[in-house]
Amino acid sequence: MLKIAMAQMEVIPGHPDENTATILRLIDAAKKQAADIVIFPEMAVPGYLLGDTWEQSSFIRDCESYGRDIIAAAQGITVMFGNIAADWNKKNNDGRVRKYNACFIAQDGALVQPDGSPYPFVIKTLLPNYREFDDTRHFFSLQKLARELGTTPAQLLAPLTLTIKGQDYSVGCLLCEDGWSDDYEVSPVDILRQSGPVDFYVNISASPYTLGKNNKRNRVFGREARDAHVPLFYVNCIGLQNNGKTVYTFDGSSTAYDAAGRVVVSAPEFKEDLAFVELDQMASLPDVTPPEEPDIAHIYRALHYGVGHFLANIHMQKVVIGISGGIDSAVAAALYNKVLGPENLLLVNMPSVFNSATTKGLSQQLAENLGCNYMVVPIQESVDHTLDQLEHTQMTLLRDGGTQHLAVSSFVAENIQARDRSARVLAGAAAAFGGGFTCNANKAETTVGYSTLYGDQSGFLAALADLWKHQVYALAHYLNDTVYGREVIPQGIIDIVPSAELSAAQNVDEGKGDPIKYPYHDYLFRAFIERWQKATPEDLLTWYREDTVEQNLGCAPGLVAQYFPTAADFIADLERWWNLFTGMAIAKRIQTPPILAVSRRAYGFDHREAQNGPYYTRHYRELKAQLLAR
Amino acid sequence: MLKIAMAQMEVIPGHPDENTATILRLIDAAKKQAADIVIFPEMAVPGYLLGDTWEQSSFIRDCESYGRDIIAAAQGITVMFGNIAADWNKKNNDGRVRKYNACFIAQDGALVQPDGSPYPFVIKTLLPNYREFDDTRHFFSLQKLARELGTTPAQLLAPLTLTIKGQDYSVGCLLCEDGWSDDYEVSPVDILRQSGPVDFYVNISASPYTLGKNNKRNRVFGREARDAHVPLFYVNCIGLQNNGKTVYTFDGSSTAYDAAGRVVVSAPEFKEDLAFVELDQMASLPDVTPPEEPDIAHIYRALHYGVGHFLANIHMQKVVIGISGGIDSAVAAALYNKVLGPENLLLVNMPSVFNSATTKGLSQQLAENLGCNYMVVPIQESVDHTLDQLEHTQMTLLRDGGTQHLAVSSFVAENIQARDRSARVLAGAAAAFGGGFTCNANKAETTVGYSTLYGDQSGFLAALADLWKHQVYALAHYLNDTVYGREVIPQGIIDIVPSAELSAAQNVDEGKGDPIKYPYHDYLFRAFIERWQKATPEDLLTWYREDTVEQNLGCAPGLVAQYFPTAADFIADLERWWNLFTGMAIAKRIQTPPILAVSRRAYGFDHREAQNGPYYTRHYRELKAQLLAR
Repeated sequence: MLKIAMAQMEVIPGHPDENTATILRLIDAAKKQAADIVIFPEMAVPGYLLGDTWEQSSFIRDCESYGRDIIAAAQGITVMFGNIAADWNKKNNDGRVRKYNACFIAQDGALVQPDGSPYPFVIKTLLPNYREFDDTRHFFSLQKLARELGTTPAQLLAPLTLTIKGQDYSVGCLLCEDGWSDDYEVSPVDILRQSGPVDFYVNISASPYTLGKNNKRNRVFGREARDAHVPLFYVNCIGLQNNGKTVYTFDGSSTAYDAAGRVVVSAPEFKEDLAFVELDQMASLPDVTPPEEPDIAHIYRALHYGVGHFLANIHMQKVVIGISGGIDSAVAAALYNKVLGPENLLLVNMPSVFNSATTKGLSQQLAENLGCNYMVVPIQESVDHTLDQLEHTQMTLLRDGGTQHLAVSSFVAENIQARDRSARVLAGAAAAFGGGFTCNANKAETTVGYSTLYGDQSGFLAALADLWKHQVYALAHYLNDTVYGREVIPQGIIDIVPSAELSAAQNVDEGKGDPIKYPYHDYLFRAFIERWQKATPEDLLTWYREDTVEQNLGCAPGLVAQYFPTAADFIADLERWWNLFTGMAIAKRIQTPPILAVSRRAYGFDHREAQNGPYYTRHYRELKAQLLAR
Repeated sequence: MLKIAMAQMEVIPGHPDENTATILRLIDAAKKQAADIVIFPEMAVPGYLLGDTWEQSSFIRDCESYGRDIIAAAQGITVMFGNIAADWNKKNNDGRVRKYNACFIAQDGALVQPDGSPYPFVIKTLLPNYREFDDTRHFFSLQKLARELGTTPAQLLAPLTLTIKGQDYSVGCLLCEDGWSDDYEVSPVDILRQSGPVDFYVNISASPYTLGKNNKRNRVFGREARDAHVPLFYVNCIGLQNNGKTVYTFDGSSTAYDAAGRVVVSAPEFKEDLAFVELDQMASLPDVTPPEEPDIAHIYRALHYGVGHFLANIHMQKVVIGISGGIDSAVAAALYNKVLGPENLLLVNMPSVFNSATTKGLSQQLAENLGCNYMVVPIQESVDHTLDQLEHTQMTLLRDGGTQHLAVSSFVAENIQARDRSARVLAGAAAAFGGGFTCNANKAETTVGYSTLYGDQSGFLAALADLWKHQVYALAHYLNDTVYGREVIPQGIIDIVPSAELSAAQNVDEGKGDPIKYPYHDYLFRAFIERWQKATPEDLLTWYREDTVEQNLGCAPGLVAQYFPTAADFIADLERWWNLFTGMAIAKRIQTPPILAVSRRAYGFDHREAQNGPYYTRHYRELKAQLLAR
């Protein structure tokens, strides 16, 4: 009769004091329910995404000190928890103190030494070093340690023997990536299984939310339990962690798998939870695999949680949103309104001569539907003043005294409007209102830099910048239909052609708008960034020649022929956007606000990029010449 | 008689076509001079800092294709060059194709297979994974390969046997970090030396400029040559590479060490160079260790090269700089003027009611000294209009129809001025002038976010943001005394108190200015970011208690007592800046322009950080309580 408590807690990155308080509280709660073991997530003490805070020795010592508090509290219960482990006598490859990403197991106020390990803790074997993960930058893996000691991971990684109520249990202890070994030379799960009989696996994780990840995890972890014929307990944290440019939600979703690999306990997403399981009763529990939901329901939950926590982290209670009558700002407004309440939200419409009565009316309607604060701040007078100053101030070349005046093109004037709205009106209004203003860019715009720096590209957070335009529309419907249960985003905003309304050429009433053809470009851009094998123009021309573009991109069939009558048209469009994606858009993304990640590849720290200018491979140029010669 | 050519070339990151053209041209030049071997830098074909471009399979294939051109050109000469090497049958740990950072050696149009290697190229053994380096994210090391093959690095890393003019040479081939093994478990240099007699070492590198690095390299590499009693050829690239947020110059400085470890050939900094060395005559060459120069001379050279190349890379020929009459913008103006010429530089002074006649006069004087374009664009009318709009536009809470008005505090009004200057005037003027505008922030301001987002924090490049304030002053003197040989930066600008002049409290004529006490804070902030063992408030209080603060920081003695009469004063100052450094300043740095790196730790990709809020360790709080209780 072994009772296990899975402690799905919020981990606050970089605040071991607060995390330790949570851990001690949950140890207490688990003891009150007579649990024998309580399991906390990976890096529950320090947090996981800390940037280079790992280089502060005093911070590492602080985490060790709080770790001792937790070990001391392990009285009458076995406590498993993730923390940083330092070996002050050894070095990492950067010359700093040796650090391991470790799982500590404490009983009777002392640590249990795992069999075979040179340390009184279990060391993470597989260190992820892709997407946002920088584990190898900071931590020393069990593989490296084995090499240093002249042995193998298998020799260092035996199951842990826990004696509880007079009975021995053999526990296979894994840390997060250790359970995802498909692309590694070694599999900790296999090593543990082969090194002797295991009674159950524990996987402590700090695993960020990514759309679709949990289905895959249930397949992989369920298989690991089934292959070994033993239960597996996956304990993940909740909370919000960031790497500066990219912000991740951690969804929890802690799960217990029985020996057949079935999901028998599933903790809620994004909520603290202390779930209890009796080890020998798991086979009789019903399967509780969470029901399938549409993607947009998951995305909304992650966005709502992420925005709320981000605001709390930076102590921001009030938000200003510039609304244009378009879909992106409307969705942002409805989302923030739900997070903050209407009294803490200020919507600002900032018309110029190019803004239609249609969009001005839709903006007003949106604000009325939400019941929040609203103001209209026209920008024409300010823009005219700027144009006048720039064009009529004398510029003197002092070397020879020659004078001239600057000329402002219509393109330059468009950007002047965008900056006037954001850097002048919204930034000032937000500071006066006592909060920040949002960036409402979507992922398609962000991909190609269809935005103005210090204009609509600015803000304290880009909450929608990991959503393609079609996902923004899906979110609009979900907000109306499910979240609010009424039409808060006016149908007119959903129906209108997307447009920046910065010139007469972008007149919405004439159906003129963005140059991005979202039904196709959403998917083209997605292939540039989200495909594991990233697509480039060479791949696109290969597919074009094979007539498999839509199939490879996942967009509606027939779009290529519809949009691009000739190969030359297809190529011109491809090069236009590739030049932007790998050119000016990178310059803009370098200065973009933090992006809230929901996809399997978000901009920022998740997708690292250099301002190196567009490039076309030799084979691309050959394919292009062939296609144009046809 | 072996004649070796060291080909110090500019590597253009992400453009294998251009790099291959350079390589083929230099092979030709080396053959004309009857060289037997020509050596190119690490990653000479693809470039080194490419972000996640390494994930594009078509790019990897393209590099392989250009590599074949180079191999084919190795006729009558042995060519050693760095390129990416793929094994399409194996995987990296991220599931993508296996990639090695490799050195290829070609003779008679074919590759020479190194002894013991499973591949026809030498694989980099040590992959740096600190500062800006992400090698482990993309490349598979020789160490991992050895583990995968069940062998040791020593078995895979034997010297290369080259047959030239009928004679065999044993070459120890190293890639960059392989020569810097102090903190690693294995030393490729030692392995090569121990595996048999080596005739000479080659180290191909892609090593960014860092102040002081070359002195250290001469010590380390000279020792490696001396220990083995053989010459060592270090071939580094020149050029500019970036990781988005941080921009690095590559200084070349390729060096030949003789068997005694003396520097006998030293290629110039930042210039293409094809240097020839006769192997058996090296001992008779004179020592050519470059003469010691002041740090600021090196820094100026790196900045001048870096700014010039950055502008060329983004195809920008014209630049606008907002000048305030302060030191930072004046130094930026003198630097850009030297890079671009006065006709391509526009200085803009943007006075408000708070700007003194003193600084307005100094701005005019600076522009006259440089002879560049100049204009004065007052901002008061625009700022007043913004204040009026914000304060007099009615804000309605639509839920209940309640109305109110925003109130603009003097602090908010300060930021409105800063944004008016940058996002309204400079951004508009730059676009109309046909260029970009600069960010003139120094490293002290950048550390604590003493700047306005979308105001003085904005621009296309922050060229001075890796220089402490005292280095900015040193650069001002160097520009006047050495670069221009006349007082282009007026002495008044050097003498005036640093001030933002955004309110009456910052009146320069009354000696009022910045809250940063640069003689102390420059060094305090440097300890936060540049020390290898990063300092935190806990370290500062420890030093304060020991009375070793100045000694540990490296600032002038006596400053602590002078600035902070009591422990409470010292602590209040420390917490004020630590709260900013780890708080609001991170939010600002996330949106800051690219920073040109010169120090051993620059902001951006070099120093990764998360927006997690300030933290004080338990021991800090104990020390603080003790000090305050005295």
